[in-house]
Amino acid sequence: MALIVQKYGGTSVGAIERIRNVAERVAKFKMLGHQVVVVLSAMSGETNRLIALAKEIDKDPDPRELDVLVSTGEQVTIALLAMALKDLGLKARSYTGWQIPIRTDSAFNKARIEDIDDRALRADLDSGQVVVVAGFQGVDSGNNITTLGRGGSDTTAVALAAALRADECQIYTDVDGVYTTDPRIVPEARKLDVITFEEMLELASLGSKVLQIRSVEFAGKYKVKLRVLSSFTDEGEGTLITFEEDSMEQPIISGIAYNRDEAKCTILGVPDRPGVAANILGPIADADIEVDMIVQNVGANNTTDFTFTVHRNDLKKALDVLDVVKDSIGAREVMGDDKIAKVSIVGVGMRTHAGVASKMFHALAAENINLRMISTSEIKISVVVEDKYMELAVRALHQAFELDRIPALDA
Amino acid sequence: MALIVQKYGGTSVGAIERIRNVAERVAKFKMLGHQVVVVLSAMSGETNRLIALAKEIDKDPDPRELDVLVSTGEQVTIALLAMALKDLGLKARSYTGWQIPIRTDSAFNKARIEDIDDRALRADLDSGQVVVVAGFQGVDSGNNITTLGRGGSDTTAVALAAALRADECQIYTDVDGVYTTDPRIVPEARKLDVITFEEMLELASLGSKVLQIRSVEFAGKYKVKLRVLSSFTDEGEGTLITFEEDSMEQPIISGIAYNRDEAKCTILGVPDRPGVAANILGPIADADIEVDMIVQNVGANNTTDFTFTVHRNDLKKALDVLDVVKDSIGAREVMGDDKIAKVSIVGVGMRTHAGVASKMFHALAAENINLRMISTSEIKISVVVEDKYMELAVRALHQAFELDRIPALDA
Repeated sequence: MALIVQKYGGTSVGAIERIRNVAERVAKFKMLGHQVVVVLSAMSGETNRLIALAKEIDKDPDPRELDVLVSTGEQVTIALLAMALKDLGLKARSYTGWQIPIRTDSAFNKARIEDIDDRALRADLDSGQVVVVAGFQGVDSGNNITTLGRGGSDTTAVALAAALRADECQIYTDVDGVYTTDPRIVPEARKLDVITFEEMLELASLGSKVLQIRSVEFAGKYKVKLRVLSSFTDEGEGTLITFEEDSMEQPIISGIAYNRDEAKCTILGVPDRPGVAANILGPIADADIEVDMIVQNVGANNTTDFTFTVHRNDLKKALDVLDVVKDSIGAREVMGDDKIAKVSIVGVGMRTHAGVASKMFHALAAENINLRMISTSEIKISVVVEDKYMELAVRALHQAFELDRIPALDA
Repeated sequence: MALIVQKYGGTSVGAIERIRNVAERVAKFKMLGHQVVVVLSAMSGETNRLIALAKEIDKDPDPRELDVLVSTGEQVTIALLAMALKDLGLKARSYTGWQIPIRTDSAFNKARIEDIDDRALRADLDSGQVVVVAGFQGVDSGNNITTLGRGGSDTTAVALAAALRADECQIYTDVDGVYTTDPRIVPEARKLDVITFEEMLELASLGSKVLQIRSVEFAGKYKVKLRVLSSFTDEGEGTLITFEEDSMEQPIISGIAYNRDEAKCTILGVPDRPGVAANILGPIADADIEVDMIVQNVGANNTTDFTFTVHRNDLKKALDVLDVVKDSIGAREVMGDDKIAKVSIVGVGMRTHAGVASKMFHALAAENINLRMISTSEIKISVVVEDKYMELAVRALHQAFELDRIPALDA
């Protein structure tokens, strides 16, 4: 008997018939004697519908009330799945975030889980219940409803798997695993049977839509065995996300990620003295804006140019903050650009192989693609390009690193 | 400065534009210096849409999960109104049932309010916030979401008004007050400026759709000043619901109510011994079925026939219970009939005027309408007729009691 946490995304619960299918899949696991916790997203399209209602009222709706609003989406699906499970003769009980409770901080729209009380769930599981949990939501210390941000249901699933010390956390989605890159852009993209947590982390954070980044962080931190599977087929083992030491094969590059959700902020002519980065990024963090890439170049006359990327939705807010910062630190100019895309190559094998960066830049240069920003880590290299070149860049890199071929083992 | 509780029904919040109108109305009261608590229903049609989803999964959906599902409707509207109020520059904060909390018993789908903690609301009001509360919902001692049953938002509003000792509880709806009967059936129906609580109670319980019965009971018990108004016009004072002693005019009959939501259960040939009514109604109550009219007639051979009405939706369940009861008490037969309608005349003046019943029965006889059941109280007389005669009966009675004329004062 194992304890399994299963998470189903919006398309998997997008219609009554699909909710029934999920119930039947859960029933199969239950019949095998497993304890099952199910985490659900809202029906596909529902969160967007609710946000559109809010934006009809106010283009920049109140964050607290937005969470009250959008958290209803998951509350609907958990009730419906619990009904469907009972209709199959199983015992089942739904839980909203506050009912468990899943305690978070108070950062509305992008809260972080602080604590999960597993007592009620544990008691239900021990009494044979299927536990159905609303993903994406929690409650703060003031009893306000919070949400974890887009894709937060993955995080809920992994956090629950960690809290309950589950044997496996299965993320059901509309794709059958993790690919070397998006098959819609590169038809030769290949499904990976295994991928390391670190690679998955970089792929997720770089825009691969399969798993939400925070869920991968959580899984790595708490050693949760994570598997990505398709909810539309019973075949295949999906992609298992392993710890590096377990992994036999070590290709140089595992995958290519892209992301068109970011925008670039640049502050020019910053007097170059200690603490200037903190002076710029401090107010940005205070405004609850997440920063991704950061690049600083020394400029002329003892000044420096400072560039970073934020989510496209945060660009206006970030520029407003920078306008104030500019005056306070005596910088020259603030610029924003949302016509950018980020393309990254990811692989743990990169650590031990020289020349990966050079191969990447050559491949892009051969297509006449200009690089606006470059950022590297131990297992990834990211470049920012004009967004119209994004697909071309992904294809060129997929071919250059021969990702369509099953890799030879790395000695 | 007064503390006002305002309740807006589903049609008043049925679209973004209407939610904006509600926000503007609330703002007017706030500008006059009043403290305002707003109680909202779900957008019109939403509760039915959610119930239809549930019934697609299971014709008889799990009651606990049904409440998890349908309570999302009000959660959506409170968030949207709070956003709209903030958009107008007001301070506002939404509350679900569990956030206040509004404590209820555990009778899912028809829970009763047991206690309201007014501390959080009071603090918000004192700090100038408009408080926006989800109607219709609460939370039981096990932290399960409960709903109060159809029309429960009225009850929420009155209960809050009582808990906060509000100066007035205003029920905004799509009609501009309480009428002598439904104007769709009798075009001459007249709006009442005042009506007593007792009359309103009888009118509400008998099917007048303006106010939910439990809200009127609550208002009477806690002496809440209640007013019914239209949310679609700024004109008119609506109908004030008064305590009898305040009322100057005392017409014999105030209004005519009707109800087509009931069904009749009859158990024939019951051995006539003490306790038999309890033996029949006990199991019905245990099955959480509410009974309205009860009539018992002595029959032949020391037996009695026992008839009562229940909500139409409960008929099947009631007949199932009676089939068991029949065998245990040695009765002969059980019958059900859902082709009935109840028509009632209501008026506090009835107490001091003889001949009201006889006038009613004459008017119906003149139209050849057969009476299946009769039940009377101090201020109402109800008859059950075949449902196809319902409109005819209402019109005949409206005319017989001259309800289209403004009444002379009752000496």
